[in-house]
Amino acid sequence: MDIDDLPTPALVIDANALERNLDRMTATHPGSALRPHVKAHKCTALAAAQAANGHNGFTCATPREVIGMASAGLGQDLLLANETLDAGRLRAMAELDPPVTVAIDSEATLHATVTAGIRRVLIDVNVGLPRCGIAPGRAGALADAARAAGLEVRGVMGYEGHLMMVTDRAEQAERVAAAMALLVRAHADVGGHIVSAGGTGTYDLHAETGVNEIQAGSYALMDTHYGALGIPFEQALHVIGTVISVSDEYAVADVGLKALGMDHGDPDVLVEGGARRVWFCSDEHVTFSRDDRSPEVGDRVRVVPAHVDPTMAMHATAWLTRHGEVIDRWPIDLRGW
Amino acid sequence: MDIDDLPTPALVIDANALERNLDRMTATHPGSALRPHVKAHKCTALAAAQAANGHNGFTCATPREVIGMASAGLGQDLLLANETLDAGRLRAMAELDPPVTVAIDSEATLHATVTAGIRRVLIDVNVGLPRCGIAPGRAGALADAARAAGLEVRGVMGYEGHLMMVTDRAEQAERVAAAMALLVRAHADVGGHIVSAGGTGTYDLHAETGVNEIQAGSYALMDTHYGALGIPFEQALHVIGTVISVSDEYAVADVGLKALGMDHGDPDVLVEGGARRVWFCSDEHVTFSRDDRSPEVGDRVRVVPAHVDPTMAMHATAWLTRHGEVIDRWPIDLRGW
Repeated sequence: MDIDDLPTPALVIDANALERNLDRMTATHPGSALRPHVKAHKCTALAAAQAANGHNGFTCATPREVIGMASAGLGQDLLLANETLDAGRLRAMAELDPPVTVAIDSEATLHATVTAGIRRVLIDVNVGLPRCGIAPGRAGALADAARAAGLEVRGVMGYEGHLMMVTDRAEQAERVAAAMALLVRAHADVGGHIVSAGGTGTYDLHAETGVNEIQAGSYALMDTHYGALGIPFEQALHVIGTVISVSDEYAVADVGLKALGMDHGDPDVLVEGGARRVWFCSDEHVTFSRDDRSPEVGDRVRVVPAHVDPTMAMHATAWLTRHGEVIDRWPIDLRGW
Repeated sequence: MDIDDLPTPALVIDANALERNLDRMTATHPGSALRPHVKAHKCTALAAAQAANGHNGFTCATPREVIGMASAGLGQDLLLANETLDAGRLRAMAELDPPVTVAIDSEATLHATVTAGIRRVLIDVNVGLPRCGIAPGRAGALADAARAAGLEVRGVMGYEGHLMMVTDRAEQAERVAAAMALLVRAHADVGGHIVSAGGTGTYDLHAETGVNEIQAGSYALMDTHYGALGIPFEQALHVIGTVISVSDEYAVADVGLKALGMDHGDPDVLVEGGARRVWFCSDEHVTFSRDDRSPEVGDRVRVVPAHVDPTMAMHATAWLTRHGEVIDRWPIDLRGW
């Protein structure tokens, strides 16, 4: 099938760009040095491509992602890099073989994890992002309590999410080093082999931080937000739309905010001849500037999301394409919780 | 089941608040004077409640919504209030009985509609929102062309979406009247019985506009955006979350931007004792202010979305509750395109 025959809105992945992105990241972080984050794509077919590149450990944000990855045969070393108190979901994860690893950052999450029968944990350490993670100085005590409860403590994780979008790279490197110094200090108290951190925006700043696995995910498909950083990954994901209405000044395509992660703002809209100014998005539409009598009703447009993760979660299917041909249909099969 | 036993994030609908909202709108616009917009909830169970209130015509934004409503036995008078050129989806809609009505605003959408075998159309008229809709002065000619092609032209529609959020109600009423004057003038050229317009934000401003059916949808469940207008509809929808991590200054719950329509901004977070300041949302988390040692890990929070329509589209299930008890499970079965 030709890409122009897909019903729209259609989530399409350029296989060549995807493969180049995967290869570039693997060249920097081969094998277990990368623990790809599946929250960025929620797609076991894409995860299988990452595994084929030599990465057998994966990072997940939800129990659904963990369980779906295991069901797809990609469960060799799964990390739930997030806290949960959900007894039912923890028990479902505890039944998986090989055993999964779950992040904990408090006595309460330790207790829920032990009770459910989970056997392996990482201590989630706060390195400056105001979200989950225990204060670095208290990480060792939590690890001691976990070991006393019979758990294997595999090490630490600490996500420097507040530093992903620092645009001055020298400043970014300095701040990442400072954040990771907190993590490494906590690791000295915690023990275990894993020091896990990082993301697409800081993937190349960990050579001397002491981190031994990177949790990047967005690098595979990319978005305009990460694209603005100038890192060497290409836009591999587009939402294809059809122009359904035009006026002299603007055109309207059928890619709306129900098909796009909007938390980072409006998408880019690309037509023959380049990008057009986006006026606004509504539920099922994007309105953008029209000039030179282009585009016309029926023309196709490419919409580039500002944030890849939630965009993937809004679609049931991604179409894999190469040179304009649809070569595969990938279910977005890890949606939900 | 108790509402506190639901796995989180959980989309819950308060049945009492929903019923009050439905009844209030029905009191203003009984029967065919309201054509509820299903894009706001994408849920045939909720649409059935609207039908039970006497509304047998529905507004849809996507072919999927049209076809799903017909499959659920709610297809008595369905309007696709949107343009499409998708031949396959138009053909699927053309097979429905009773016949559906599709909006057109150009020769191209007329041609696609006729070719697919659709028999009934409305002329979509631009009344000031820069989106779909033909210029009012050209509506009559398009209606003539549609009739010449054998279509039944049922009338006009024109959505004044740019006026939904005008907070000065006198100014809003004046601008709605001016927009609807354009629609009524177009209707004089187009003919047919239907003059369809309006939304939740302008539902009570059409007494003298000449509009004979209102397309409101958000009124059933509401969101913080519409809530700010002071219209008499209650918040009937919440996303229930669990606090999974706390520091002295903030708490983190498991309701992130993949569970919330974010195009209108951050949600409100309600804990025992009131609302808390939201710091930010990330994929699976909301971080918000914590004080007085509250909330603790494991506590439940209620998150109120800023935009109901995309929030519904992110969930597979809504839980209907009454006085804290879960009384039904409603699939969000009209998602996708």
